[in-house]
Amino acid sequence: MTATFVALIDFLGTFAFAISGGLVAVRHRLDLFGVLVLSFAAATAGGIARDVLLDMVPASVVDWRYLAVSLVAGLITFRWHDQVERLRNPVQVSDAIGLSLFAVLGAGKALANGLGPTGAVMLGILSGVGGGIVRDVLVATVPSVLHRELYAVAAFVGALVVVVAHALSLPAAPAAVAGAVACFVLRWLAIRRGWRLPQPRAGDPS
Amino acid sequence: MTATFVALIDFLGTFAFAISGGLVAVRHRLDLFGVLVLSFAAATAGGIARDVLLDMVPASVVDWRYLAVSLVAGLITFRWHDQVERLRNPVQVSDAIGLSLFAVLGAGKALANGLGPTGAVMLGILSGVGGGIVRDVLVATVPSVLHRELYAVAAFVGALVVVVAHALSLPAAPAAVAGAVACFVLRWLAIRRGWRLPQPRAGDPS
Amino acid sequence: MTATFVALIDFLGTFAFAISGGLVAVRHRLDLFGVLVLSFAAATAGGIARDVLLDMVPASVVDWRYLAVSLVAGLITFRWHDQVERLRNPVQVSDAIGLSLFAVLGAGKALANGLGPTGAVMLGILSGVGGGIVRDVLVATVPSVLHRELYAVAAFVGALVVVVAHALSLPAAPAAVAGAVACFVLRWLAIRRGWRLPQPRAGDPS
Repeated sequence: MTATFVALIDFLGTFAFAISGGLVAVRHRLDLFGVLVLSFAAATAGGIARDVLLDMVPASVVDWRYLAVSLVAGLITFRWHDQVERLRNPVQVSDAIGLSLFAVLGAGKALANGLGPTGAVMLGILSGVGGGIVRDVLVATVPSVLHRELYAVAAFVGALVVVVAHALSLPAAPAAVAGAVACFVLRWLAIRRGWRLPQPRAGDPS
Repeated sequence: MTATFVALIDFLGTFAFAISGGLVAVRHRLDLFGVLVLSFAAATAGGIARDVLLDMVPASVVDWRYLAVSLVAGLITFRWHDQVERLRNPVQVSDAIGLSLFAVLGAGKALANGLGPTGAVMLGILSGVGGGIVRDVLVATVPSVLHRELYAVAAFVGALVVVVAHALSLPAAPAAVAGAVACFVLRWLAIRRGWRLPQPRAGDPS
Repeated sequence: MTATFVALIDFLGTFAFAISGGLVAVRHRLDLFGVLVLSFAAATAGGIARDVLLDMVPASVVDWRYLAVSLVAGLITFRWHDQVERLRNPVQVSDAIGLSLFAVLGAGKALANGLGPTGAVMLGILSGVGGGIVRDVLVATVPSVLHRELYAVAAFVGALVVVVAHALSLPAAPAAVAGAVACFVLRWLAIRRGWRLPQPRAGDPS
């Protein structure tokens, strides 16, 4: 993947997660700075976790553009949340876009730093789900990844496409696009059709 | 401690914490992937925190066996949670085993990486309690370490045994076993007999 | 800034945040160890996050004095919380002191490690708000930074003073004092006068 293509994916994913963070903040009646903080936290937490685990200084700490993209998305959400909310499930849509883009990006970055296939899939999933986890924990709710429709499964599929393409020496950019599309479509169908993984059978309450 | 012995402790602790994470997930009615995610998070968070603070790439990110052990434990919990729940306090038992093994392992790993006694005891405690903290925060409850019977005290004792033995140049493997047993027995007696540390005297509610 | 001056700020901030953590623990009826754990977590989480993002082993892990300061503050809180609570808003005062000191310290440490102005301001804010976030998440409440009066704005101002002074080659120690005072005064006035940032206009509940 060229650096420009990676940066494009990265900032699109940052923007999408920042919108989801801002909307969750608005729904919890936070003030302007709370909206901006939650936008930034949702947008960068997955990438920060990925880079810390790769033993690197996170990109979003040294590059001001991540902050700028997050703040723009947060301000848009703050100002026009009424219009945004008129879209169908805007939190879920923006969250699913961020999930898809960061899952393929995280897997690709892990491979580029020498991790094996299992590590790359795991960092892809973590990059994808990290922002949503921090967003939800900060407003004291159970993160989507733990109980929503095929959330981590979709990130797994997206990261897997990237890792398999790498193992087969296929070109990286089309693989990233294919992985992101597969992740988004799977997550979106799961939301629309209510697909769920099996739940544990009811037992004796403990 | 030989590498084999360390690996044995590590995978046993991983398995025990993964069971505790899976059981907590089942009790919160999460679906299959939520059970697997919480198993993995509970099993690896303490070790990840320990390795990040030691400025290393965490073992569970580069070695697929941690993921495999967590998934097996999560699947067992998902499938047979009724039978597991028939044991006496299975969450507390598996949690206490993980706590004991990771406390001594974390202290030993910190010493091996050149930390002094205070740092080694602190990383031992963190390794022991980290998995349970992440597990409980993810389901939006107050972590056990903050209000349960002698939880962090037990991890402290386990880590202290390892650090004192190291200072006295005693052999590491028996010290690790002794520390883990001391930690587990203390935690278990505290649960069974309701031992508690003093609570603050009731004051004016604020 | 001389090393002695930095250490003074650091231990004062550690003590202040540890008091705030201990008081929150007492209000949640935690036992002695819960009080000590929450004191230590509140006192060190911001600095640990800062150092991990700078790819360093955190100071509080290798230097026993952070633990000692936290434990002393925790024990004082545990023993004399009635008297401490008679002060006006002791959690908010100690929290505001810690916020101010860590915001300027974090920005200064980031500059000393080669980060640019945006990164230094961000790490200053994170150092300032990190301890309070972990403290509040551990007792399952929404962190102050997301909804309290000008909380992150105050940290932003404190860090900005340090970064601007550095850009103008002004002496670091007076800049740090000025930044900390500006942060504290802003936060304190916001609390006393109820200053708030705008909230989103009420829309259709979703």
